[in-house]
Amino acid sequence: MSNIYAVIMAGGAGTRFWPASRAKTPKQFLPLGADPSEPLLAATVRRLRPLIPPERVYVATGEALVEATSRAAPEIPRGQILAEPVPRNTAPCVGWATATLLRRDPDAVIAVLPSDHFISDEAEFLRVVEKALGVARSGYLGTVGIVPLRPETGYGYIEVGEPLSFGAFKVSRFVEKPDRARAEEYVRGGKHLWNAGMFFFQARTMARAIEAHLPDLWRGLEEIDRAARRGEERRALDAVFPGLPSVSLDHGVMEKATAVAVVPGDFGWNDVGSWESAWELAAKDDAGNALPDDAVAVDATGNFVCDRTTSGGKRVYALVGVSNVILVETDDAVLLIPRDRAQDVRAVVDRLKSRGDKGRL
Amino acid sequence: MSNIYAVIMAGGAGTRFWPASRAKTPKQFLPLGADPSEPLLAATVRRLRPLIPPERVYVATGEALVEATSRAAPEIPRGQILAEPVPRNTAPCVGWATATLLRRDPDAVIAVLPSDHFISDEAEFLRVVEKALGVARSGYLGTVGIVPLRPETGYGYIEVGEPLSFGAFKVSRFVEKPDRARAEEYVRGGKHLWNAGMFFFQARTMARAIEAHLPDLWRGLEEIDRAARRGEERRALDAVFPGLPSVSLDHGVMEKATAVAVVPGDFGWNDVGSWESAWELAAKDDAGNALPDDAVAVDATGNFVCDRTTSGGKRVYALVGVSNVILVETDDAVLLIPRDRAQDVRAVVDRLKSRGDKGRL
Repeated sequence: MSNIYAVIMAGGAGTRFWPASRAKTPKQFLPLGADPSEPLLAATVRRLRPLIPPERVYVATGEALVEATSRAAPEIPRGQILAEPVPRNTAPCVGWATATLLRRDPDAVIAVLPSDHFISDEAEFLRVVEKALGVARSGYLGTVGIVPLRPETGYGYIEVGEPLSFGAFKVSRFVEKPDRARAEEYVRGGKHLWNAGMFFFQARTMARAIEAHLPDLWRGLEEIDRAARRGEERRALDAVFPGLPSVSLDHGVMEKATAVAVVPGDFGWNDVGSWESAWELAAKDDAGNALPDDAVAVDATGNFVCDRTTSGGKRVYALVGVSNVILVETDDAVLLIPRDRAQDVRAVVDRLKSRGDKGRL
Repeated sequence: MSNIYAVIMAGGAGTRFWPASRAKTPKQFLPLGADPSEPLLAATVRRLRPLIPPERVYVATGEALVEATSRAAPEIPRGQILAEPVPRNTAPCVGWATATLLRRDPDAVIAVLPSDHFISDEAEFLRVVEKALGVARSGYLGTVGIVPLRPETGYGYIEVGEPLSFGAFKVSRFVEKPDRARAEEYVRGGKHLWNAGMFFFQARTMARAIEAHLPDLWRGLEEIDRAARRGEERRALDAVFPGLPSVSLDHGVMEKATAVAVVPGDFGWNDVGSWESAWELAAKDDAGNALPDDAVAVDATGNFVCDRTTSGGKRVYALVGVSNVILVETDDAVLLIPRDRAQDVRAVVDRLKSRGDKGRL
């Protein structure tokens, strides 16, 4: 329907994919899904298309990333790239997008989606999104919860309550990242879903919820909105946005609101949270190696080589007697790390920071 | 003394240092010693200089390597680079050099030395060479045997006989590469030295020995010599050299001759036989890592990164949680291999050969 809009959240620092990701090239610009030529952001826009065409897709990002965003998703009209002067977490981001869409369409129904996740079953994803939009049209703040596959301690969970129509459920509560024991309980119990950061709502419902639960944010958004109606949005943004409360939509709104619903989703979702996830998604040979063409692997299993050099493709990678390691190459940096330590890329980024090596961050 | 000459043997395929070594850039052209800017061949020429200056140093190599040899050792007069049309093992190589030097100086005393070994105690090396030259002047075919440090099964050994003057010993026999048990016996027994492929002799003594033990080779060398005296050496080489018997000097001459002597040497010798040896020789941090400048090592020990790309030095290498691996980078190839499997580089070279990837061999 023509009053359905998407807001794709595409901020993000992306240190977990160093050296491929940088401050100016965070994760959503990397082709980390199954197609080695399609950035995650482009895939996000493409997979929405049957339901929400680009003319109704907005992308929220940082000012410094507007150009890169436009290059990665050229079908999005430039005026629909919402450039935040500074990052203030998701509530101000979603709030500003909501206010913006209310000016365009008072009946707007909005799907807020992350820009940097992978989804293998896109048809099923769209079916779930349609359900969630139905929930939103009924006046709920909707979300999609992923049916958990393992006792993951890195995600928040959504506790499912009583059933509604549309295959949706009331949300009992949002749960912070649990410890291992609790996560195992959640998976066994069958009443918890992974919080994947997707939100579905009527713009006016969200506006009222922000006004009720985050009145400071609401006042700021109103000031920006008034300036926008005078054609002076940019100046107001620069003045107001940095002072908005930095709070997540989950914490600031979803956890406090009462009419909150969740649709369970099971569509091959992967948050691509580390090089380990990227290896999981990549095409692999029989020995579990994801290597560039022409690579030579001798007694080598479960390795991932990611060649992001500008001369990429010209080099033969030869791996002998090594297993389960990740090798990432760019023009100015090389990372070698075991797959099961992929999270520790942060240690490298920290070292470079303390060294003042801004060129490589 | 002015009748002392050196012949540096600089042929060699050098597959063990792939991808840094190639058919056109074998090991002697790589800076694998302690000084990361000095190729092994250049170090060989430099360390001889106090005893044998470049005007009396000859380098024997393959025709395809003459240019590279001249670049690596520019102080050697071009006419002293002996270009073999085809490789025919060490006896023809040394024989041809001997005949060549006999034309220049009938009293020539020759030190034959490999081009691609490392020596840490150069002063002691020169003392040992002087002793070996003394042995040679007494009419012996001399050699230097390295005091063994471990039961190495990859080298030939020299069994030491009765003592001579000059700190030398008669050679009882040359021993092929032993098995582990035998090698341990040799090290314990104290009567065996490593054969390091160094030979010292009067040119006329070697000529007589070749005539006696390898008469076919001798006839070929005489033919080349006669042509050389007419200024037609190149043509004769092309016609005769490929037909010379392909045999090592050890097998063909040293093992058969009677007046053969050895001087024990203990001067920090290393044959730089693999990336593992190169790591041993390289400058390392406290954690045993030999890494380029600016590298970041987190929980990483005993690693060796060799950046041989033309943009070398521009890249930061970050190693997290990996130990005892070797990473070698060139513009067209990358090798990742554990240190203790360094010998298996051959497997990669074999794969590339069977694939017909001549550009990378």
